[in-house]
Amino acid sequence: MVVCGGFAQAIGLVCATLVRSGRTRIAVEDPGHATIRAAVERSGMTTVPVPVDGDGLDVDTLARSASEAALLTPAHQFPTGVVLSPERRGALVDWARERDAFLIEDDYDAEFRYDRAPVGAIQGLAPDRVFYLGSASKTLAPTLRIGWIVPPREFTWPLVEEVLYTVFATPHLEQLAFADFIGRGELDRHLRRMRLVYRRRRDTLVRALERALPELEIGGIAAGLHVIASLPAGIDERRVLDAAFERRISVSGLGEHCAAARSHGALLIGYAATSEAGIRAGVRELASAFANA
Amino acid sequence: MVVCGGFAQAIGLVCATLVRSGRTRIAVEDPGHATIRAAVERSGMTTVPVPVDGDGLDVDTLARSASEAALLTPAHQFPTGVVLSPERRGALVDWARERDAFLIEDDYDAEFRYDRAPVGAIQGLAPDRVFYLGSASKTLAPTLRIGWIVPPREFTWPLVEEVLYTVFATPHLEQLAFADFIGRGELDRHLRRMRLVYRRRRDTLVRALERALPELEIGGIAAGLHVIASLPAGIDERRVLDAAFERRISVSGLGEHCAAARSHGALLIGYAATSEAGIRAGVRELASAFANA
Repeated sequence: MVVCGGFAQAIGLVCATLVRSGRTRIAVEDPGHATIRAAVERSGMTTVPVPVDGDGLDVDTLARSASEAALLTPAHQFPTGVVLSPERRGALVDWARERDAFLIEDDYDAEFRYDRAPVGAIQGLAPDRVFYLGSASKTLAPTLRIGWIVPPREFTWPLVEEVLYTVFATPHLEQLAFADFIGRGELDRHLRRMRLVYRRRRDTLVRALERALPELEIGGIAAGLHVIASLPAGIDERRVLDAAFERRISVSGLGEHCAAARSHGALLIGYAATSEAGIRAGVRELASAFANA
Repeated sequence: MVVCGGFAQAIGLVCATLVRSGRTRIAVEDPGHATIRAAVERSGMTTVPVPVDGDGLDVDTLARSASEAALLTPAHQFPTGVVLSPERRGALVDWARERDAFLIEDDYDAEFRYDRAPVGAIQGLAPDRVFYLGSASKTLAPTLRIGWIVPPREFTWPLVEEVLYTVFATPHLEQLAFADFIGRGELDRHLRRMRLVYRRRRDTLVRALERALPELEIGGIAAGLHVIASLPAGIDERRVLDAAFERRISVSGLGEHCAAARSHGALLIGYAATSEAGIRAGVRELASAFANA
């Protein structure tokens, strides 16, 4: 395992290492995180958007794309909130083995599943084909800048070398504190506590949306720190976002995370940092923004 | 000013930004730090080694090199320990202005000058042409991973964007603690105290070397955290280093930091982390290694 300064640094290190191994085409989920796609492109890789449906990444399209790597959020796809199905997991691993390709598993939301036990990582199925990336940003605090990479064994030393020549070293104080926090069982306790808090916030948000904005369709599994709510056909995402912004309601849209065009829009609504009362008040404002847009 | 995770990250960010501005040839000091040269090359720039003499970087050779940037250690050249002369400073700034080139000033040792007040930074002469890079690694602790870049104004936003897409953010806890440390005057007090400690260690090292190994020629100004000691002609640097290593004496050689061939070698001897008694004992071991080599 290589410890580094958070997910953005992790993905940069992995991409640089893949480029050095001669792989420059990487499939990314579409929709998928816009900032992460931009970060991957800065690393010198060419991104190939591959559609996501209700079962996750479309592996048939991936197989036709001549990609040499694929970046995925299997536990809770960002932003659609779907889980990668068991069949797709198997197909992805087969694809990687046949093509001598590698999967990058961004396990950003795995700790926050509310309705059942989280699915296992793909990395467990094929440790020789998967770079597993995790971070403390969502479980504890982004400002810690603690992330980790579990690479296929052959990439350990190339990654360590990449760290040496770009980052040089990862700060130790946070690592020591984090290790102590884990060792004393505090991270487990924190996660159990926060899972309950976040689940209540999610339930509050979903109920409030269903009541105030029944025309929205809520997608994705009961997990993570955001809800995706599809807009009815004919409603312009940009106008809703602008009207919400005027009311100081910070939601984002599906549009910015799409590489290809989409038929209709959706709102991404985070609930991790807002109280239940704040969520209810926010949804009222959002409904009023929606009425105006 | 852009705060980042130490010097290695700073130089990577600056080089990436220069590459995006269309500049890919960068002059580096020869001899100069081997790891930093490798880090610069990883950023996508081509390094052009330019010789260093007793006045610092040879600006005439630089001017003939078609470089579009130059990386320098003006306060205390690494590893030769010379100071860049006032004439060279002026010539460098003229060169940068005429060629639309940029200087990267690595001010790694400026806080530790023992014989007189340190010279000012080149950045003060031409803030529009100089990226000034500093860090807390030598003044406080490398594990903090705190560094800073004072860029020419036109590069501020490109640098901020480069941070966003590669590092994403710099840890805040250390920054807050460091700001508090500076604000309470503790950094000044620490530097005044350590300047005295390091000066005594340097004096002890130089005296011990003069006594035990009079055939070595000590170069560089009374500054920094290492001494450079040239070997007499005919003595092989590698053999001395190997013999020292066998005696568990950790010194390094000039050779690894040279891009072009050199006529004879030198030892680089750090004294920052060794007590005066340890320095005297180390020099005795070094003399015995020298006798064997």
